[in-house]
Amino acid sequence: MHSDELPTPAEVVDASRRIAPFVLRTPVVRSRILDEWLGVSAWLKCEHLQHAGAFKYRGATNAVQLLEARTAARGVCAHSSGNHAAALALAARVRGIAAYVVVPADASPAKRAAVTAFGASITECAPTLEARERALDEVRAATGAHEIHPYDDRGVIAGAGTAALELLEVQPELDVLVVPVGGGGLLSGTCLAARRHDRPVRVIGAQPAGADDAARSLAAKALIRQADPRTIADGLRTSLSERTFAVISAHVESIATVSERDIVTAMRVVWQRTGHLIEPSAAVAIAAVRLLAFAPRTQVGIVVSGGNVDVGALPW
Amino acid sequence: MHSDELPTPAEVVDASRRIAPFVLRTPVVRSRILDEWLGVSAWLKCEHLQHAGAFKYRGATNAVQLLEARTAARGVCAHSSGNHAAALALAARVRGIAAYVVVPADASPAKRAAVTAFGASITECAPTLEARERALDEVRAATGAHEIHPYDDRGVIAGAGTAALELLEVQPELDVLVVPVGGGGLLSGTCLAARRHDRPVRVIGAQPAGADDAARSLAAKALIRQADPRTIADGLRTSLSERTFAVISAHVESIATVSERDIVTAMRVVWQRTGHLIEPSAAVAIAAVRLLAFAPRTQVGIVVSGGNVDVGALPW
Repeated sequence: MHSDELPTPAEVVDASRRIAPFVLRTPVVRSRILDEWLGVSAWLKCEHLQHAGAFKYRGATNAVQLLEARTAARGVCAHSSGNHAAALALAARVRGIAAYVVVPADASPAKRAAVTAFGASITECAPTLEARERALDEVRAATGAHEIHPYDDRGVIAGAGTAALELLEVQPELDVLVVPVGGGGLLSGTCLAARRHDRPVRVIGAQPAGADDAARSLAAKALIRQADPRTIADGLRTSLSERTFAVISAHVESIATVSERDIVTAMRVVWQRTGHLIEPSAAVAIAAVRLLAFAPRTQVGIVVSGGNVDVGALPW
Repeated sequence: MHSDELPTPAEVVDASRRIAPFVLRTPVVRSRILDEWLGVSAWLKCEHLQHAGAFKYRGATNAVQLLEARTAARGVCAHSSGNHAAALALAARVRGIAAYVVVPADASPAKRAAVTAFGASITECAPTLEARERALDEVRAATGAHEIHPYDDRGVIAGAGTAALELLEVQPELDVLVVPVGGGGLLSGTCLAARRHDRPVRVIGAQPAGADDAARSLAAKALIRQADPRTIADGLRTSLSERTFAVISAHVESIATVSERDIVTAMRVVWQRTGHLIEPSAAVAIAAVRLLAFAPRTQVGIVVSGGNVDVGALPW
């Protein structure tokens, strides 16, 4: 991929200014108990408390606000079974434009309800990538809406990076940033934010062993698409794109992979002991920090990516 | 009760300075979805993110830090089935003194585990008030430890009030403060913090209908003890003391009572839609705000009192 098509650290700073009136500057919190469990000094950037329940609202807002008025007027669209759908629906509502979301029939009722609550139009389709893309093509043809991809989009990546930017403002002495990786929007945005920081910050991605395309791609030095993801972390079942892979492979130190059991344990420990209701994808980053066993007092920044879980159906 | 024995607004300010090195200055957060559900502008003081998972750590820390060295050296003790036990255990550990906690046999395993994790000695007893007091007398006789009551204590009340003090610093334009009431430590501390504020702030208590001694006491203008509490809100099954009743009856506007169903609904809405893992006692305040139906854009401060729930046994 040509470097002209890649987002830059400056775009993260621009995004931060652009989205400031709309997004929550979420708290950065400490937890004594979590520090003991992880063996580090952990700084949690609470994106599970973000509007629409995930960091996704940052990227969706940046992308929606970047649109020229004429394009925006026709609305925005995406296919998504998860947090991007709700984030885009809310970002569109805030700008006062229409959102059309293609949702597979197996999407969770809780996530579907959020999309509807934010006023987006839902088109249901069969739960395959082909069906989703076909349905989205039809929506686009019928409405003229502009597609905003959940991660393969410069504006979305730059917006996602603003979470790490804010985290580094609160604690500039971070040694390492650990974030989950699915499509790579959050991880590549985090790389850009780290590059802009005035002291070196290691960046590590965290991925379920059952959906480890980023780890394998990094090892192979070539993009390997996720074929058959098997993980409870529903936000991380997607594949990197050429764009996110290019940013990630240039900057990321490593990708840690964690087992399903470690994900559920981390999620339960965080729920039980810290008061934070985090989703499995966010627990992947926590589990990775425990697994990585950093030196004591390492200052670890973790982007807690989201908190959208069906609380009526828990994995324990 | 003679007014000399009552805590003052100045003691809350003193407590705030005293405990600052030890307690978390918890975040104050907004939630767009919660605002819509409640019909107000809600400002949540996140004491479920406090050390030991509840505002109780503020009062316990203040009381423990207030002790003279000679008294402190013999340790502290209390009987408690809940958040005060864990809070006192941690406050004692931080000061480097012993804590002896009498815990009834029916206390939740999760809460017991927290007390043990913080290094306190546990004495188990039968689950009646008489058995608890007898066991505590024996512990005190054997150890010489100083009892720190969970709420009928000036230092504990003043410490509890620091949560509202910080909330008012973040949003000085609050119209009303709503906090749950059990023994009345948090509510009386909140009254003192509100009195110190430079513009009037209404203070409302929130109580389960099945444990409504504060509401009945306020109506009767005399302390009526809680006889047979029946509520899921395990932190609110206690009775006011003469001390907390005196402060509350002088300052509180009203006590709102909510049904068990409203408590569970509020807890589930907060869990599902906001990313905050709050305990039933905290949900009582949220449910009360919904019930009270304030005028739109009323600025409502809510002290989210705690987040200690056994996540393996949920009420839905």
